[in-house]
Amino acid sequence: MTLAQDPTTRSAPDRHEVFGAHEGGKLATGLTAPLADERDLSIAYTPGVADVCRAIADDASLAARYTWAHRLVAVVSDGTAVLGLGDIGPRASLPVMEGKSALFKSFAGLDSIPLVLDTTDVDEIVETLVRLRPTFGAVNLEDVAAPRCFELERRLVEALDCPVMHDDQHGTAVVLLAALDGACRVQGRSLSDLRIVISGAGAAGIACARILLTAGASDVVLLDSRGVVDAGRGGEKAALAAVTNPRGVTGGIAEALAGADVFVGLSSATLPEDLLATMAPECMVFALSNPDPEVHPDVAARHAAIVATGRSDFPNQINNVLAFPGIFRGALDAHARRITDDMKVAAARAIADVVADELSPQKIVPGPFDPRVAPAVAAAVARAAGDAGVTAD
Amino acid sequence: MTLAQDPTTRSAPDRHEVFGAHEGGKLATGLTAPLADERDLSIAYTPGVADVCRAIADDASLAARYTWAHRLVAVVSDGTAVLGLGDIGPRASLPVMEGKSALFKSFAGLDSIPLVLDTTDVDEIVETLVRLRPTFGAVNLEDVAAPRCFELERRLVEALDCPVMHDDQHGTAVVLLAALDGACRVQGRSLSDLRIVISGAGAAGIACARILLTAGASDVVLLDSRGVVDAGRGGEKAALAAVTNPRGVTGGIAEALAGADVFVGLSSATLPEDLLATMAPECMVFALSNPDPEVHPDVAARHAAIVATGRSDFPNQINNVLAFPGIFRGALDAHARRITDDMKVAAARAIADVVADELSPQKIVPGPFDPRVAPAVAAAVARAAGDAGVTAD
Repeated sequence: MTLAQDPTTRSAPDRHEVFGAHEGGKLATGLTAPLADERDLSIAYTPGVADVCRAIADDASLAARYTWAHRLVAVVSDGTAVLGLGDIGPRASLPVMEGKSALFKSFAGLDSIPLVLDTTDVDEIVETLVRLRPTFGAVNLEDVAAPRCFELERRLVEALDCPVMHDDQHGTAVVLLAALDGACRVQGRSLSDLRIVISGAGAAGIACARILLTAGASDVVLLDSRGVVDAGRGGEKAALAAVTNPRGVTGGIAEALAGADVFVGLSSATLPEDLLATMAPECMVFALSNPDPEVHPDVAARHAAIVATGRSDFPNQINNVLAFPGIFRGALDAHARRITDDMKVAAARAIADVVADELSPQKIVPGPFDPRVAPAVAAAVARAAGDAGVTAD
Repeated sequence: MTLAQDPTTRSAPDRHEVFGAHEGGKLATGLTAPLADERDLSIAYTPGVADVCRAIADDASLAARYTWAHRLVAVVSDGTAVLGLGDIGPRASLPVMEGKSALFKSFAGLDSIPLVLDTTDVDEIVETLVRLRPTFGAVNLEDVAAPRCFELERRLVEALDCPVMHDDQHGTAVVLLAALDGACRVQGRSLSDLRIVISGAGAAGIACARILLTAGASDVVLLDSRGVVDAGRGGEKAALAAVTNPRGVTGGIAEALAGADVFVGLSSATLPEDLLATMAPECMVFALSNPDPEVHPDVAARHAAIVATGRSDFPNQINNVLAFPGIFRGALDAHARRITDDMKVAAARAIADVVADELSPQKIVPGPFDPRVAPAVAAAVARAAGDAGVTAD
């Protein structure tokens, strides 16, 4: 397999350009109709607006029709696990959250505002969003550190009657499933027949293991820094130990990878080539750590039939932007009260379906700017929401 | 005095038009630069954004430069005193808050988001905004019922290191002072020589009394439903009783109005013409209740030399939109940590100055769409913030 692009030949944006593009921030609010004269004012503001307020006071469901809140995604973070930078706090996380809000707008036409919180206490974050509930239509949790992110997401799903999703977990999981689905179609294989190794048992790794099992995978081995995850681990990992590692592998990455069909890297730990060489024929390598994949794609290609990374300068970029805009758009379009596992799996299938007729080892997923993706994902998610009976209608 | 327009001849927007204009809400978010390709994404999002995050983590003051938060006004309400509709709750208040945010954008170029709260507890509202502090640059409190609004504003000013203003109090007060200033210039009189009666001792009435006293008025009589406010009243009114009513007027509106130079109506209570007739020669009537002034402007004009209302279909419209966009813009431009009384008085003077060469009994304030107003107010407020030493720089 030859990889088309070499990162060293691309003109990467320099610091000057990056900081210049951030002057004054990346988001703005705007009006859906101009306020040019007294008459406009009397419609959008007093006295006209009073009729709309009165109508909503009489029938709260009309808020979804006559305000922006129903289609507004709050991008919520406490800034504790920002990119690879760690706990840099809410102020410093804001450029990422603005970027995320910009992506919601660009890719799915959804209005979105960052809400960054000067607290890391789960109770306080839940309480804050419950009080603000009438302000927004959905919550995209972002860059909250594990293991707190698991409890926070679970508590928010319980407390709020609207879609809530921690994208670092589920966005990544959906796109990985889509890519693995695409790769299986290229090779004519079935997910249920694959031996899958996931290196990294943080928020993303755990969510990836969960969605693969939900979608039909039967042999998933999860690794953390101490080796194969077993029943001795605490928290989220303990529950996963019961449903993963069906062959009872013991040891570390070497034992797990021998004969494996799929490697999913989410840990930044370097993957030595000699271990790669022990994988099964026609194996797949998803080296998703950013900006440095666990193994260089050129090296991986010596052993693997299909290679994917998180980077835009190599084929098969696994980027969350394929998933979250359409997932939230579909959930909001359907007036869904939650985002179910079935909706996530439906999103993954929809992503893979977009390129069903274009699949090749170098194209197992659509490119991030493929305009077909978000509408297809939104439609599939909305349909799945209806099937699951989680819509308000 | 002849009043130019008759409300019965204007084509008022009908319900169909008003509801149509509210479909999907009145606000939208947008991007300051497009995200058209991989390169844009690498600047606005990963990996480029990491440099900006790191810079803010090292120097928190850079958040003001590289995020939108510094210029973002949160329009905050619990929906307890919405227009004349009363306590209709946060969901039903949202169209007003969206309208307010739209006005911030249209009149002062400020980004703004509504934050409507499903709690009326002062502690909880303060706590919520403290937690969200990194999200916004200023708080416009809106439509919070008295007397809770006084404590809430005071507590927020203490708790947040950013401009906070309850517009129903101070926006109204600033514009009233501007109008009275303009009227004094027309008549060649001084604020300190006027006997002023304020009918209505709610949030707006109390703030109006306060700003007039701050600006030099010496004889203000405040009335509520029980008559002249005296030391027997509780809360905010008790403090005002000590500094108002210097002649010791007792009784009600009839006693207060006899020989008065200025009537300020903020109570919706009808003002009978025979009482108006007892006011001093060349008196001024500000009948500000909306949509129904305390006295029809045509009736008032039989007795008063200058008449103003809150309505757009008569001359001398006293509209908060003359004040709040420029006040917040000036405070944010100056990096002010609070909005002082001097900044409010400076805003009022700036509004009156805009029409200094155009003043007449029919034009004591600029029209609400006069494009000179917000920049002039912003500049005056920023200057006053610097003088007061409340800027962060």
